[in-house]
Amino acid sequence: MGEKPVTAVAGIGDTLGKRLEVEGFDRAYVLFGQFLLLKTDQELFCAWLKDICGANSKQAKDCHTCLAEWKDQFM
Amino acid sequence: MGEKPVTAVAGIGDTLGKRLEVEGFDRAYVLFGQFLLLKTDQELFCAWLKDICGANSKQAKDCHTCLAEWKDQFM
Repeated sequence: MGEKPVTAVAGIGDTLGKRLEVEGFDRAYVLFGQFLLLKTDQELFCAWLKDICGANSKQAKDCHTCLAEWKDQFM
Repeated sequence: MGEKPVTAVAGIGDTLGKRLEVEGFDRAYVLFGQFLLLKTDQELFCAWLKDICGANSKQAKDCHTCLAEWKDQFM
């Protein structure tokens, strides 16, 4: 993950990425922090992501799955 | 890190651990989420930790160092 931009996360394209950057989530690891803080809960995380950057349901789910897979593999 | 309790993090003993649990930070990974969300900033993280559980300066710094080392090594 390192210092990769937030757009390296599945579901986060240029448009959502720019909105997340404005909100301070410029790096993938910052978004991952929010995912951990919400205790990896899919429903809570997807609702939060839709609210903060206007993600649709598929984008939010893809993003959650990507972060969850990273956690399962490396933590 | 897995599902280790928050007391597995350096600087967090039983007393601080119990206070953090009450605030929802029961696992090391949830505290790590907060650390990432604050963009790994030492000053911000230590101030937050002192505020939320009454950590002293040494405890807060030990905790920050522990989380920063994990990130450097595995992310």
